[in-house]
Amino acid sequence: MPVYNAPIKDMQFLLHDVLNVTASSVPGYDELDADFTNAILEEAGKIAGEVLQPLNTVGDTEGCTLENGVVRTPTGFKAAFEQMKDGGWTGLDMPEQYGGQNMPYVMGTAVGEMFSGANQAFVMYQGLTHGAASAILAHGTDQQKDTYLPKMVACDWTGTMNLTEPHCGTDLGLMRTKAEPQENGSYKISGQKIFISAGEHDMADNIIHLVLAKIPGGPDGIKGVSLFIVPKFMVNDDGSLGARNGVSVGNIEKKMGIHGNSTCVMNYDEATGYLLGDLHKGMRAMFTMMNEARLGVGMQGVSQAEAAYQNAVIYAKDRLQGRDVTGVKNPDGPADPLIVHPDIRRSLMDQKSFTEGGRAFLLWGASMIDAAHRSADKDADGLVSLLTPVIKGFLTDEGYDMTVRAQQVYGGHGYIEEHGMSQFTRDARIAQIYEGANGVQALDLVGRKLAVDGGKHVMAFFELVKTFCKDNGDISEQFSADFITPLKAASKDLQAAGMYFMQNGMKNPNNALAGSYDFMHMFGHVCLGLMWAQMGKAALGALDSGASDAAFYETKLTTGRYYMARRLPATTMHLARITSGADTVMALQADQF
Amino acid sequence: MPVYNAPIKDMQFLLHDVLNVTASSVPGYDELDADFTNAILEEAGKIAGEVLQPLNTVGDTEGCTLENGVVRTPTGFKAAFEQMKDGGWTGLDMPEQYGGQNMPYVMGTAVGEMFSGANQAFVMYQGLTHGAASAILAHGTDQQKDTYLPKMVACDWTGTMNLTEPHCGTDLGLMRTKAEPQENGSYKISGQKIFISAGEHDMADNIIHLVLAKIPGGPDGIKGVSLFIVPKFMVNDDGSLGARNGVSVGNIEKKMGIHGNSTCVMNYDEATGYLLGDLHKGMRAMFTMMNEARLGVGMQGVSQAEAAYQNAVIYAKDRLQGRDVTGVKNPDGPADPLIVHPDIRRSLMDQKSFTEGGRAFLLWGASMIDAAHRSADKDADGLVSLLTPVIKGFLTDEGYDMTVRAQQVYGGHGYIEEHGMSQFTRDARIAQIYEGANGVQALDLVGRKLAVDGGKHVMAFFELVKTFCKDNGDISEQFSADFITPLKAASKDLQAAGMYFMQNGMKNPNNALAGSYDFMHMFGHVCLGLMWAQMGKAALGALDSGASDAAFYETKLTTGRYYMARRLPATTMHLARITSGADTVMALQADQF
Repeated sequence: MPVYNAPIKDMQFLLHDVLNVTASSVPGYDELDADFTNAILEEAGKIAGEVLQPLNTVGDTEGCTLENGVVRTPTGFKAAFEQMKDGGWTGLDMPEQYGGQNMPYVMGTAVGEMFSGANQAFVMYQGLTHGAASAILAHGTDQQKDTYLPKMVACDWTGTMNLTEPHCGTDLGLMRTKAEPQENGSYKISGQKIFISAGEHDMADNIIHLVLAKIPGGPDGIKGVSLFIVPKFMVNDDGSLGARNGVSVGNIEKKMGIHGNSTCVMNYDEATGYLLGDLHKGMRAMFTMMNEARLGVGMQGVSQAEAAYQNAVIYAKDRLQGRDVTGVKNPDGPADPLIVHPDIRRSLMDQKSFTEGGRAFLLWGASMIDAAHRSADKDADGLVSLLTPVIKGFLTDEGYDMTVRAQQVYGGHGYIEEHGMSQFTRDARIAQIYEGANGVQALDLVGRKLAVDGGKHVMAFFELVKTFCKDNGDISEQFSADFITPLKAASKDLQAAGMYFMQNGMKNPNNALAGSYDFMHMFGHVCLGLMWAQMGKAALGALDSGASDAAFYETKLTTGRYYMARRLPATTMHLARITSGADTVMALQADQF
Repeated sequence: MPVYNAPIKDMQFLLHDVLNVTASSVPGYDELDADFTNAILEEAGKIAGEVLQPLNTVGDTEGCTLENGVVRTPTGFKAAFEQMKDGGWTGLDMPEQYGGQNMPYVMGTAVGEMFSGANQAFVMYQGLTHGAASAILAHGTDQQKDTYLPKMVACDWTGTMNLTEPHCGTDLGLMRTKAEPQENGSYKISGQKIFISAGEHDMADNIIHLVLAKIPGGPDGIKGVSLFIVPKFMVNDDGSLGARNGVSVGNIEKKMGIHGNSTCVMNYDEATGYLLGDLHKGMRAMFTMMNEARLGVGMQGVSQAEAAYQNAVIYAKDRLQGRDVTGVKNPDGPADPLIVHPDIRRSLMDQKSFTEGGRAFLLWGASMIDAAHRSADKDADGLVSLLTPVIKGFLTDEGYDMTVRAQQVYGGHGYIEEHGMSQFTRDARIAQIYEGANGVQALDLVGRKLAVDGGKHVMAFFELVKTFCKDNGDISEQFSADFITPLKAASKDLQAAGMYFMQNGMKNPNNALAGSYDFMHMFGHVCLGLMWAQMGKAALGALDSGASDAAFYETKLTTGRYYMARRLPATTMHLARITSGADTVMALQADQF
């Protein structure tokens, strides 16, 4: 059985030594002193390790079952969900007005990583609810907020997001689900939605579906899409539940992973729905929360990599196989532990340097979302919007690859389900796909985000890197060689790629788009390089000031040096791929494939 | 339901335009004229597409079941196995003396790729039998050969390889299974073996287990390991089956993939065994066939990538989503097919250029194995031994990644099991692990193979590349720019890495071993670069001589240009990783992970 230990110390390091949250002017950050955040993280870590993680294998093995229109979640899920609710974990970063605790999103992200690392399939029930509640919070009328939010913040009612239809995924303009206006101001929703996570289950009294649909006669394509609230049970004026609405689960999908989450085909048959936000502005309403939702998925990449890594380390220390070529390390045993072998180290260091760098990137991103939402900081909003596809695409691709590396440490034992390493890869795989497949993230980055506000935000990013390098070039020769020089080189590669797009994308947009995926990955490496440089600086600072836990900070520095030396050089490869242009990518006719 | 179309044309191109098999002096190659090989490949392709492929999903869904010591294979497997046997496919490259068809291994490899691409789990029953029969062929007494080989070549009896035990995988010196000598010259085998593919099933009258075990009092560790033949049913002198032997299946593993193959825990309880080969030389006997066995696993990487790619192409042409940014391509439809989008192309071209390059690498490798076995060509043997870990490690890593890319083309539909794309990734995953996990392949390459015969074989490889570049530098400026220049650059990177190992590995072997995995991948890219340069040359030659199917050769050239431009630059990244040395890899103490 795999284990999960919440990375509390690492999160504390990021919040206080790196992000220095209490020094921030963002409202609410002043309350995040080290004792407070430690208390929160400790408690969340207990829930993660003691309540959620033991159910991870159960969820994978049992899966969800559908019988007579009722979806049953795996054994123990319902009781654990109650514990989450009782502890107030479902509304951590929601407004107090609706029963939440009003903490910054950065805390929600840290806690979310733990819960997701312990049991991704389980925590999605709450995650989807959070997303739906956020949309109602941003776009609902006061009456809608009062009706739904207290229940959703408490997770007495859960929520869903209904976008995809059998023939339309990314291209939502093809949508067929209809919303017929009624005389009383409500709508009758009819159509089929697929891949609806938590669409039906047995853990809540009601399920509040947010459904994209088109009103007949409205504008064509994406411009005619509106968003509707469709409750499973109608809600009476006094808040009690009324009749069953015309929405039902048609099927649950057999999936590669996240078996504990019910992925439903939802059938809407003249279901009563209520417009959420403006008519025909459904996409805008749905995507208000996009940065958060996508950061949440990027977090899943890191969380699964972390969980898989922890178990790979345990196995590498425990499993005796072969001898250290530089000299026996375990003379009393029949062999040395796997961890003596350089290639096992290479794999573990790839994993460790990614998860810690990725976590820093996530919390930095979350802090920018807080600045955007709580301080109306437009620059933070612009920068995090630019980086969102990188956070989602890069962190989930890399996160998946790291779970595969962790599984590989187990050899044959990683391939059998018993050890749980396969589940980490199978669960992590979905994060590359949903909430906009990673190819779409790359398109969003290169085709849209780079040019926003005349390229202002990407310039701000480069300026950030440049300023860091300039301000910290005199820390020490060692620091410059280990961190500053590689960061500068990688950033230069990224700029060169951007320049290539500018110079060649105008005459043929495919020259940019054919390099979009590589650009997203380059960008991710530069971001993690920046994170590691910042963490390296913070670690040096702590060591200089005589921090008690020197080993922790030394480990940080070494891990950072690894990332800079061994991962950042990927930017040169991506640059070469990009600057080879679109010709070889686009040359074949469709029938030549 | 996924499809599988045997890549007959591509195989014919490789056999005749590239490898030019009939011009080879290797015995048996003169018979491989284009009509003959085409007839074989056509027939094999039918079996693959019509018999094996339709059972692939069945095997995944049903899996194997164990009840009262009996393992049942999925519905239809037994009938399909009979068809394979009736068609003589099980002994294609086995000696006529034992009922085989004595074809070169290169043909066995081409046919094997088809069968494996159609149904990897199924064809393993025959593949293991082939491996066990090859060991008996190489090391058995005449009596052993006469007793077992006719039945095994026909697959009336199947075979297994028993190496792994719960506590010992790669490090076979830790083995505990015992073989007690008996007065009649046989042995009593006792112990437990795990991960035994096809260890027990219902498709053969008998199962011939090859079992590694230690004779008490023999040398310690790996030097005391011997190989034994342990039949499930004792074989009487007249060849009829006698009593059940003391071997039984203890359990079958629940695995991530290859569900159709029974992966067994085998318990040996004083089972009667017969020494195969020399006493205490079990490893040597087992590994005589290593090059073939590992090439066979490399082939699985390519075969799964090919199968997944074919289905990704179909989906990319069929699925309408979004519009070509350079202009609408499907004006009568609601959207353009996925294949218009540059990032989908990037993914498909990665897949296509890998599978075709990988297939060339496999058939080249197989032709060297033929030269080694049939012509006692020591240079060929040395070169293919050097390249074997590259074939196994690189082709299975890349093969797996390509199945993931193919799955990604399907978006959410790739994650649900219905479309079969998840199965390709789950099945392909095992090839990175078994027959020596890929980290062990990298160790074999850098820690052993590079230095064999004073580095003679790696020098021969570089000479081969150099000679090709020199001999073909004047084909055209275009050819030089597209193929020769990138190949030279990549080969130079590889040489620089080898030089780094020589200069730094002596003072600290970890400097070499920490870069072994990257070196294996670099080497793989240079090999595929060489293959593409050779294929490009052959395609140009065919076009110049007015070949009828110009589109096929044009496609080859374009695909090759893609590989050279977009994949080969990976060597620079690997070189940078390698030359950063072992320090950051090895710096942490075990408790710092």
